[in-house]
Amino acid sequence: MNYEEFLKQKGLEPGDVVKIDTITGTVQGILMPHHEFSDEGVLVVKLKNGYNIGLAIEKIKGVELVQKRKTVREEEGSVERSPELPDVAVVGTGGTIASYVDYHTGAVHPAKSPGELVKAMPELFRVANIHPEILFSVLSEDMDVKMWQQIAEKVAEKLRNGMGVVITHGTDTMGYTAAALAFMFTSLPCPVVLVGSQRSSDRPSSDAHLNLLSAVRFAASADVGDVCVVMHEGTSDNRCAVHPGTKVRKMHTTRRDAFRTVNAREAGYVDGEKVVVNGNLRKPGPLRYDTRMEERVNLLYYYPGMSERLFRAHFEGAKGVVIAGTGLGHVNSRFVPVVRDYIRQGCAVVMTSQCIHGTVNMNVYSTGRELIRAGVIDGKDMLAETAYVKLMWVLAHAGNQDEVKTLMETSIAGEISARREV
Amino acid sequence: MNYEEFLKQKGLEPGDVVKIDTITGTVQGILMPHHEFSDEGVLVVKLKNGYNIGLAIEKIKGVELVQKRKTVREEEGSVERSPELPDVAVVGTGGTIASYVDYHTGAVHPAKSPGELVKAMPELFRVANIHPEILFSVLSEDMDVKMWQQIAEKVAEKLRNGMGVVITHGTDTMGYTAAALAFMFTSLPCPVVLVGSQRSSDRPSSDAHLNLLSAVRFAASADVGDVCVVMHEGTSDNRCAVHPGTKVRKMHTTRRDAFRTVNAREAGYVDGEKVVVNGNLRKPGPLRYDTRMEERVNLLYYYPGMSERLFRAHFEGAKGVVIAGTGLGHVNSRFVPVVRDYIRQGCAVVMTSQCIHGTVNMNVYSTGRELIRAGVIDGKDMLAETAYVKLMWVLAHAGNQDEVKTLMETSIAGEISARREV
Repeated sequence: MNYEEFLKQKGLEPGDVVKIDTITGTVQGILMPHHEFSDEGVLVVKLKNGYNIGLAIEKIKGVELVQKRKTVREEEGSVERSPELPDVAVVGTGGTIASYVDYHTGAVHPAKSPGELVKAMPELFRVANIHPEILFSVLSEDMDVKMWQQIAEKVAEKLRNGMGVVITHGTDTMGYTAAALAFMFTSLPCPVVLVGSQRSSDRPSSDAHLNLLSAVRFAASADVGDVCVVMHEGTSDNRCAVHPGTKVRKMHTTRRDAFRTVNAREAGYVDGEKVVVNGNLRKPGPLRYDTRMEERVNLLYYYPGMSERLFRAHFEGAKGVVIAGTGLGHVNSRFVPVVRDYIRQGCAVVMTSQCIHGTVNMNVYSTGRELIRAGVIDGKDMLAETAYVKLMWVLAHAGNQDEVKTLMETSIAGEISARREV
Repeated sequence: MNYEEFLKQKGLEPGDVVKIDTITGTVQGILMPHHEFSDEGVLVVKLKNGYNIGLAIEKIKGVELVQKRKTVREEEGSVERSPELPDVAVVGTGGTIASYVDYHTGAVHPAKSPGELVKAMPELFRVANIHPEILFSVLSEDMDVKMWQQIAEKVAEKLRNGMGVVITHGTDTMGYTAAALAFMFTSLPCPVVLVGSQRSSDRPSSDAHLNLLSAVRFAASADVGDVCVVMHEGTSDNRCAVHPGTKVRKMHTTRRDAFRTVNAREAGYVDGEKVVVNGNLRKPGPLRYDTRMEERVNLLYYYPGMSERLFRAHFEGAKGVVIAGTGLGHVNSRFVPVVRDYIRQGCAVVMTSQCIHGTVNMNVYSTGRELIRAGVIDGKDMLAETAYVKLMWVLAHAGNQDEVKTLMETSIAGEISARREV
C-alpha cells in the first residue's frame, strides 16, 4: 500500500498528530506530507524533538489520531505574548528552511504564510515572543543587491521596534547576504542572525529545527551587535556554530555542517540552551545603517587559459572588480597592463585568492609586485565573495580612489583578521 | 655588520660549504644567497638534511671554509649512473621549487640550468639516476593550454626512454596542469609526479627538499600508472601526501600542506623512505596519450548580482562552459533561458559547485531541474577546475553533444568518485 492509499484508508491527512504502532515500538508526532522525491512506501513523522523519522508502511500495525491538524488561522491565533520574554522577529526570505511548514500543501517550495514558518515549533515560543513575517520567497541563487537592501530595511524596522532579528535564508548565497548586511549595519543594538537549512524539514535528518531554534536563542540573548550565521556544527545533533557574517562560506553542497568560518575563529556556538560568544564580534551600539551599494562591481575568477577577451569583459562598464587570483594573488602576467589601464580609468581592483584559505601577498613574486605597482588593492585574508560585497559598499561611500583603497584595506566588519588565526 | 660585508670580510660566497661557530653551537652547511626580502643581519645555511637555518651574524664567533662552491659545470660532470637504480627524469617548468638552486645568483627566479635543480640534493642520486632537464621557466599563473601540451610531449619522450618522470611546477596552477596531464595520458607505464614548493629553498622552513625527494621516491618505486601531485602533508617535516591529479586543489595561500585531495581519499603518502599507495590510482599500462584540447572553453564563477551581460560573455565564442554554480549547482533562474539558447547552438555546459566539497545535484530544486531540462551536464563531484580542463579534452575527442555528455559524466581519470568518499 502506498502513502496516499494508506492515509485515505485511515482518514488521515498531513499535519495530523498521530500515534503509530510499529513492529519495533510506538511513536507519536505530526504526519508529514510527501513530495515528488518521497518514497511512496514510507510515512514520515515529525517527532516532538523536531526530528523526522520514516516508517515503512508495511511494518505499521496500527494508527491512532491524537489531534486533527490545525489550520493556519487557528495556529496564528493560538499564541499570546509573554511579557517576560524578549521579542524576536523571524523574517523569511525563502530557501530550504522555509519549506519546513509546507506539509499543508506537500510542496517543497518556499512558505507563503508568516504563521507557518514558526508555528510548527512550539519550543520557539518558550525562548522568545516570535514575530514571524515573510519578506519574500526566493531561491537564494536569485538574490540580488536590491533584495539585500530590502532585507536591511526590514531588519532596521524590526530593530527600531525593539526586536531581535532572525532572517531565514536559502543556504546557497547566505554568505553573500550576511556580508552585505554586515557592511550596511555599521552599528547594531543586538545580533542579526541569518539561518538556513541544508535539508528541508520534511526529510528525516533535517537541520531546520535545530538551526532555527539555535538562531532564535542567539538572537534573543547574545550580547553582540553584529551580523552572523548560525548553522549546524559538525555532525552533532544538538550544537550549532556561530559564524561571523563576513568570514563565513558554504563549503559543502549537502552536509549539515557545510558552513565554515574561514581565516578566523568561529564567533561562538549554541549548544542546547547554552549560548557562547567567543569575542570576535562587534559589541552592541546604537542602530546605524546605510544600504547604498554600487552595483557595477564584478567578481573575476582567474584560471590558466582564460582569454584576454573574457578577462577584459569583467572590467567593461565596471566601477570595481574583485579578482579571485591564484595562490598569493596572481593572474597571467600578460594581463597586468589590462588591469593597469582600467585602474587609470578610475576602476578599483581588489586581489583575493581562489585558495580560499590564507592571506594574499603580492610582494613575494614578480607578477604580484607588478599588480601592486598597477594599483591593485590588497584583499588580505578576505574571502573573494566578501570582498566583492564590500567593494560595492565602499564604492558607494568613498570619495576617491585613495579612500577606496584605505577602506578596502581596513577591517570594517571583521572581514580582515588582525593576524592569521587559522 | 650586514650579510655582504661579512662575506666579503671572510672571503666567502654563496654556495660555499662552511662550518660556523656560534654562541649556541657549531653548524655545517652550504651558504645560501640573499635576495630582496632577506634579513640583512642573518646568514642562511642549508644543512645536510636539506633544511635551512638562519644565524644572526652578530652571534657568529667564527667561520671555516670546508669546500669552495662547485660551479654548475663541475656539478654536472660529477655524477655517474648507477645501473642498479631506476632512471627518473626531473623536468623543470618553473615555480618556487625551481628557485631552489638560485644561490649562485641570489635571485628568486626560476632556475635556468638543468643541472642546478637537483645537484644541490645529493640524496636524490641514492634513490634514482636523476636526469634533470628544464623544459621552460614560467610562473605557474602564466601556464596555458599549449604549455600543458608541451609538458605532455616531454613526459612522453622521457617515458619512451624508460624513465620515471617528476615535473617541478609552480604551485598556483599545479592542480590544473595535473588534471590536464591526467586526461591526456589515457594509459601510463609508471607514475607521472608533479611537485612544487610553497616556500623557496633559500628560506628556512622550505618544503622544496622534502617534496622533491618524496616525489622522486614515488616516481621511482610506486606501482601505478597515473598522474599525481606529491606535496607536504600536515605540518610534519618527514611526510608528503600523494594526491590524485584530478582531485587535488591548492587550498591555502602559504601553508606547506596547502594541497588537499577533495571529494576522495588521498592516493597515498611518502614517509621517509616508505612509499604507500592507497589504491585509487590507475594501474600501469602501455603508454597511450593524446594531447588535443579544445581551447574555446570558459569557466564561469556565478555570484548573486552578476549581470546578464557578463554571464553571456562567458558563452560568446565558446564551445564549452563549466559553471561553478552555488550550492547543489545553481545560477540565477532568469539565466536559464540564456544557458538553454547556447546549448541549442551546440555549446556544452557543465555544472559544478563553488562549495568545492560535495556533489552537484540538480534534481533537488526547481532551478536545477530547469538547468537539466536545458541540457546542462552534471559535473557530479568534480572540482570546477578539473571539469574545465576535462571539457577541453572531451570537446577535442567527442563526435557529438551526446558523446560529450556521456564522457563528461563518466570517470575517465578518477575525476568522479564512484560514491561520496569524503
